Amino acid sequence: MAYCEHFDVVTRGQGLYEVTDRVEQLVAESAITNGLCTVFLCHTSASLVIQENADPSAKRDLEKWLNRLVKENDEIFTHTSEGPDDMPSHIKAALTATSISIPVIKSRLTLGTWQGIYLWEHRRSSHRRTIAAAIL
Amino acid sequence: MAYCEHFDVVTRGQGLYEVTDRVEQLVAESAITNGLCTVFLCHTSASLVIQENADPSAKRDLEKWLNRLVKENDEIFTHTSEGPDDMPSHIKAALTATSISIPVIKSRLTLGTWQGIYLWEHRRSSHRRTIAAAIL
Amino acid sequence: MAYCEHFDVVTRGQGLYEVTDRVEQLVAESAITNGLCTVFLCHTSASLVIQENADPSAKRDLEKWLNRLVKENDEIFTHTSEGPDDMPSHIKAALTATSISIPVIKSRLTLGTWQGIYLWEHRRSSHRRTIAAAIL
Repeated sequence: MAYCEHFDVVTRGQGLYEVTDRVEQLVAESAITNGLCTVFLCHTSASLVIQENADPSAKRDLEKWLNRLVKENDEIFTHTSEGPDDMPSHIKAALTATSISIPVIKSRLTLGTWQGIYLWEHRRSSHRRTIAAAIL
Repeated sequence: MAYCEHFDVVTRGQGLYEVTDRVEQLVAESAITNGLCTVFLCHTSASLVIQENADPSAKRDLEKWLNRLVKENDEIFTHTSEGPDDMPSHIKAALTATSISIPVIKSRLTLGTWQGIYLWEHRRSSHRRTIAAAIL
Repeated sequence: MAYCEHFDVVTRGQGLYEVTDRVEQLVAESAITNGLCTVFLCHTSASLVIQENADPSAKRDLEKWLNRLVKENDEIFTHTSEGPDDMPSHIKAALTATSISIPVIKSRLTLGTWQGIYLWEHRRSSHRRTIAAAIL
């Protein structure tokens, strides 16, 4: 039997918000010993990413780099009615991940030592984001 | 029991082709109430992406942006025997997704209001593309 | 019942290392006829990618292109203590995939004719990398 749940994350501007603990808690609740945990983000202007959880400078550099690659107010944009950070957010979401699946072994996510699961908010204003999870 | 199927999409040049209805139909056929739906594209010069389904300008801007980032006839390319749009297609496929997994709750995909599932064709000529799906 | 396993790949510098055979072997061992095979890389400075398995020039061009996009010694980087190739590796991992899920039909991965599964090493020195797999 699959264990399916969702939870919300309130974001306060661009950045990486760690959700590893929330996902591990769902795995514990599922009581599944060996299987697969999938997280899926129900939005098109934010994304999911696995990144280094040790040094905050890695996450800051990642974000600075992507903001330079995907600039606001690009002259080719015509989808501008929702603000200058909206179309860049859709592009960033397409370049990163909307779903991530992690094997579960002995009731634990098989994350490496330095891996954390993050919701990556690409909009500048505050948003309530929903992550759906399925553990099988 | 897993419900596995595949279906074809005929593309007519670069662009995003929505397949949300096809995937939802498979979920209905599977009769699975709570679980996970995975779509996988069996090709290396097209990809899958979740994008905004409301305003067509978002999809056009996304494609224009990626075409500018991954240019044809790049001087570093040596893999050119299959045409100028072939190597850029492989790069675009690597930067986007080949598989997407979406939790199913109460017999419905947990897609957000504005999310659609798209096959993203990166080649200029017409192609028959196969998407494999597994619903568990 | 899920069949979960992991295996190691020793890398010797940047490049794509094919793991298709290893994954197909796990599918055979699982004895699962119809289902889903997920591979997950337990690291943040390497990634997974599905790419063309026929012509090595495609993989070389892909890597050259990404190395030009994500340059070492970028002036915006502050996360530099682990070497000039570390922060570019995290960015490349975010732009490609950490997990890939492939439907299994009639005991076979539904890979297309030209698709291979690769571990993409982004660091220059040798590393032992772990891939976790779940077959359901």
